[in-house]
Amino acid sequence: MKKSLVALALTAAFGGAAAQSSVTIYGTIDAGIQRTTHVANDATQVTRRDNNKLGFRGVEDLGNGLKALFQLEIRYDPDTGALENNVRPLFQGQSRVGLQGAFGTVRIGRGLTAYQESSVAFEPWSGLPNVAGYQTDLHVAGYTSDPLSVTGNSLNRFSNAVFYNSPVWSGFQVNVSVATKEANNGPVVIGKGTAAAPQYAANAMASANPYSVSATYTNGPFAAMLGAERNAIETELWSVAASYKPIPDLKLMASYQRQDQGHTQWFNENINAWVVGANYTVGVNKFIVGYGQKDPDGVIKTKQASVGYEYSISPRTYLYVDLSVKKAPFVATATNDDTRKHYALGVHHNF
Amino acid sequence: MKKSLVALALTAAFGGAAAQSSVTIYGTIDAGIQRTTHVANDATQVTRRDNNKLGFRGVEDLGNGLKALFQLEIRYDPDTGALENNVRPLFQGQSRVGLQGAFGTVRIGRGLTAYQESSVAFEPWSGLPNVAGYQTDLHVAGYTSDPLSVTGNSLNRFSNAVFYNSPVWSGFQVNVSVATKEANNGPVVIGKGTAAAPQYAANAMASANPYSVSATYTNGPFAAMLGAERNAIETELWSVAASYKPIPDLKLMASYQRQDQGHTQWFNENINAWVVGANYTVGVNKFIVGYGQKDPDGVIKTKQASVGYEYSISPRTYLYVDLSVKKAPFVATATNDDTRKHYALGVHHNF
Amino acid sequence: MKKSLVALALTAAFGGAAAQSSVTIYGTIDAGIQRTTHVANDATQVTRRDNNKLGFRGVEDLGNGLKALFQLEIRYDPDTGALENNVRPLFQGQSRVGLQGAFGTVRIGRGLTAYQESSVAFEPWSGLPNVAGYQTDLHVAGYTSDPLSVTGNSLNRFSNAVFYNSPVWSGFQVNVSVATKEANNGPVVIGKGTAAAPQYAANAMASANPYSVSATYTNGPFAAMLGAERNAIETELWSVAASYKPIPDLKLMASYQRQDQGHTQWFNENINAWVVGANYTVGVNKFIVGYGQKDPDGVIKTKQASVGYEYSISPRTYLYVDLSVKKAPFVATATNDDTRKHYALGVHHNF
Repeated sequence: MKKSLVALALTAAFGGAAAQSSVTIYGTIDAGIQRTTHVANDATQVTRRDNNKLGFRGVEDLGNGLKALFQLEIRYDPDTGALENNVRPLFQGQSRVGLQGAFGTVRIGRGLTAYQESSVAFEPWSGLPNVAGYQTDLHVAGYTSDPLSVTGNSLNRFSNAVFYNSPVWSGFQVNVSVATKEANNGPVVIGKGTAAAPQYAANAMASANPYSVSATYTNGPFAAMLGAERNAIETELWSVAASYKPIPDLKLMASYQRQDQGHTQWFNENINAWVVGANYTVGVNKFIVGYGQKDPDGVIKTKQASVGYEYSISPRTYLYVDLSVKKAPFVATATNDDTRKHYALGVHHNF
Repeated sequence: MKKSLVALALTAAFGGAAAQSSVTIYGTIDAGIQRTTHVANDATQVTRRDNNKLGFRGVEDLGNGLKALFQLEIRYDPDTGALENNVRPLFQGQSRVGLQGAFGTVRIGRGLTAYQESSVAFEPWSGLPNVAGYQTDLHVAGYTSDPLSVTGNSLNRFSNAVFYNSPVWSGFQVNVSVATKEANNGPVVIGKGTAAAPQYAANAMASANPYSVSATYTNGPFAAMLGAERNAIETELWSVAASYKPIPDLKLMASYQRQDQGHTQWFNENINAWVVGANYTVGVNKFIVGYGQKDPDGVIKTKQASVGYEYSISPRTYLYVDLSVKKAPFVATATNDDTRKHYALGVHHNF
Repeated sequence: MKKSLVALALTAAFGGAAAQSSVTIYGTIDAGIQRTTHVANDATQVTRRDNNKLGFRGVEDLGNGLKALFQLEIRYDPDTGALENNVRPLFQGQSRVGLQGAFGTVRIGRGLTAYQESSVAFEPWSGLPNVAGYQTDLHVAGYTSDPLSVTGNSLNRFSNAVFYNSPVWSGFQVNVSVATKEANNGPVVIGKGTAAAPQYAANAMASANPYSVSATYTNGPFAAMLGAERNAIETELWSVAASYKPIPDLKLMASYQRQDQGHTQWFNENINAWVVGANYTVGVNKFIVGYGQKDPDGVIKTKQASVGYEYSISPRTYLYVDLSVKKAPFVATATNDDTRKHYALGVHHNF
C-alpha cells in the first residue's frame, strides 16, 4: 500500500491518468464607439453592441442517443473588464446542466426563458441587446422575466428553473421553462400595496411559479412562434411572431406582444408593442432594418426606427454600423416625448 | 532590428512560438430540486447538493522527480449563476501553487485545511456540503476554520497559508497547514469582550497562527485519521476517525470530534459530535446511510439520520436522491428542538 | 424540415460541427512569504510579488497579413482566491479586441496605457508591482492613469479606450492610447473645489479625453523611451528612459519622470522621480538592483534601495528573494519620514 488518502487526492488532482473531458471554450468580444443622445453623461462611449461572453460547455455521450450537457457562460463588459453592468452574477449568460435524448432536452439551473430563447429569431438584430435593436424593450413590450432577483440582474432569464425543449415533430417544437418560488434577494415591489406594506417585500418569494412557454413552427421559408410567460410577480406576457424568406438572402419578420401588469397595478396595466424588420444578406454584407412601436396604457407611444450594417471580414469577425432614432417619453409621462439618437461603430469577434 | 519593445510584447502575447503549457480545465455541475422544511422561505428550490466547480490546474515536470503544481478553482451556484453563496471569492475552491517531490508536496495560497481535506474520507456523503450530509455541521462539531475572513467566506479553508503533505510511508501520511496571522477583513468577534471592546475588532489579526494537522493511516481495507486544528480566534478542534471495508463494495465509517471554544467563551465552550455511516456500491448503484449526533454544552443535542442513493448513468454523471431528518434547536436553546426534513433529487455531472 | 429554432440553437451550442477556435489559456501564479515593516497589521504575510493572471486569448488569421486578436485577463490574489485587491473588475488585466496588420495594431477596450506598457522595460523589476520594485510609485512619479474609475481600480490602465501600436520602423515604434470622457462610477475629487462643490463630483465625466503616448527606439544593445500621459482629471506625466547592455547578460537602465497636478492642485503640483537599476543574468540566476528617489513639491523625498534574486528551476518557474528599504513620509508631511523595510521569499510559476 503505497498511497494514502490525501496522496490519492493529490494524484487525482495533479497527475491522474483520467482522460481530460472535452470542455469547449467559446465566446464573443464586441466593442465599439457609440453615442446616444438624451441620456445622462451622454459622452461618446466605448461600449458593446452584443453581449460579451466567455463560456465553457461540454457534451458527454451516454450511449443510446442519450447525452449529458452543461454550459457555463460568463458575461462581461470589455470597455471596463467588469462583469456585465458591474453587478450581474459570474455566469449571467447561463449555468445549466441536463440530459438530451429522444424525449428532448431537460436542463436545470439558470438561463434564458423559453419565450426569450425563441423570440430572438423574429427580431431584426437577432436579439442583440443594443440600443438600435428591439429585444430588450419593444420585443417584450417592456416586460421583465425575473423582477424578484437581485436588482440589476438579467431581464430575460429565470434562475432556479427547469427548462424543457421538445424534439421537433414535423417542424413543430414546444419549449417550457418553470421556476421555483424561492426567494432570491429581490428588491421591494410596492405594487398594489404601500411603501409600508408593499405587495412584495424585500427578498420575497414568488406569489406563483414563474413559467415561460413557446411553440415554434418551421416550414421551408416560413417560421412562426407563439409565446407566453408569467413572472414571479404574476405579470404576464404573450407574443405572436412570424418570419418569411421570399428569397434565401432576405428574411422578413414581424411580431406583436402584450404585457399585462394587472397583478401589481390598479390602472394602465397593459402594454402593447409590435416590431417589423428585415435582414438582407449578400456575400459578406448584411443589411438590417427595423421599425416598431410600444404603446403603454396612459403613456405616449414609443416609436423606434433603426438601420444596421455588418461587414464580415471572416466567418468569425465582422465590423458593424448602427443608426437609430427613438421617440419616447424617457421620463414616463402621458404628455411629453423626446427623441434619442444613437450611432454605433465597432467590431464583433467570436472565438 | 525589426522588433521594438511593445512589438515584442505583442508577439509574445499573440503570435509567440512559445508552446502552450498544459492547463487542464475541470469541474462539476450539480443541480436538483430540493425541499427543506423549517427554514425561512421554505419553498421547493432548485439548488445544489455538491459544490460546483470550474477549475484550472497544471503540472510542470521539473526533472529529478520534482514537479511544479498550480490549481485555481472557481465555485458557483448553478441555480443563479452567481459565485458560491453570492459573496465568496472567485477562487473559493482553492488557489495554490507549489512543488512536489520526494519530500512530499508544499503548496502556498488558499485551500482546504489538512484536517478538512483528510476528514472527508470518513464522512458518509464524502464531504459533500449538502443538508443530508454531515460534513459542514456534525463532522466538524460546528467548528469554523476561518472565522476572521470576510463574512460568508468558506468554513473549512485557510487563506494566507502554507500546506504540506508528506509522502506516504508504509501507509502513513502527515499533512500540515499553517496560516499567517494577517488581517483579512474579518467581522467583529465579541468573544469574552463587550460590544464596545470586542475580543477581536473588525479586520483583526489572528491572535495566534492558525494551524491544522492530520495523520492518516491506510492498510488494506482499513483506514484511520487523527486530526487537530486551531483557528484564528484560537478555537480548537480534534477528531479521530476510521473506516473499514468488510467486502470491497461496502465501506463502514465512524468519527468522533470535539470543538473547544474556551478562548472566546466563558461558558459552554465544548461541542462533541460523532457520526457513523456506510457506503454500499453495487454496479451503478450506490447506497449511503448515516447517523450522527452533536452535543453542545448547555444546548439540546442535534440528531441527524440520512439516506441517499446515487445512480450512475456514466462514469461522469449520476442521478441522486437524498432523504434526511434532523432534530435540533434551530434557534439555539437548551429547551426546544425542531425537526427539519429534507428531500433532494438531482443530477451530478463531472467534466 | 427536421430542426426548429431552438433545436438549431441547441445544436450550435452543444453538438455543432463548427470547429473549436483556438483559445489559449495562460497565466501566472506567484505567492510567497513577505513582511513589510511600518504598515498597519504588519504581520508576516502570504502574498504576491507579481500580478497573478488567468487569461484567455486568441488570434484569427484573416488573410493578407491581417489578424483579429482578443485577450481577456483575470487578475486574482492567490492568498485569498479573491479578485485582485478584492474590488477590481473580473478582467482587470485587460479586455481588448482588435485588428493587426501592416498598419500596426488597433485594439479597443481596457488595458495598460501606452506609457505604462512601454515603461516596464526600463524598471529593474520589469514592472512587477511589488514593494521592492519601483513601478507603482517612483517609476510613474506617484501618478494614476485612471482616477475617475471605481475606487480601488487599477492605477495604470485606461477603460473605454482605443489602443494603437505602430509597426516598427528601423527600431522605432509609436504607441498611442486615447480614452473617452465617459463616466465610470468614479469617486469625488475635491481638487480646486470644496467638499460641497468638488472639482469632480462622484461619477463625473473626464474634463478632457485621457491620452497616453510612448515612442520607443531599439538599436542593438541600446533602447530608449519617451512617454507622456494625461488622465481624466488632467494630471500630466512625462518620462524619458533608456537601457544599455554592455554585455548580453547585463542590462543597465535609468529613467526620469515628472508628474504635474496643476489642474487639480493650487500648490505643490509637481512630483519628480528618477530610478536607476541593473539586471544581471547568469545561467539560472538573475540578480536585480535598483535605486530611486521621488521628490514631491513641499514633501520630504522618498528614497528606495532594493535588491532581488531569482533562481529559475525551469523555464516557467523560479524562486525569488527581495530585500528593500524605503525612506519616506508615509503619512505625507514635509518634516517627518519613516523607514519601511521589506522582505520577500516566494515562487513564481507561469502556465
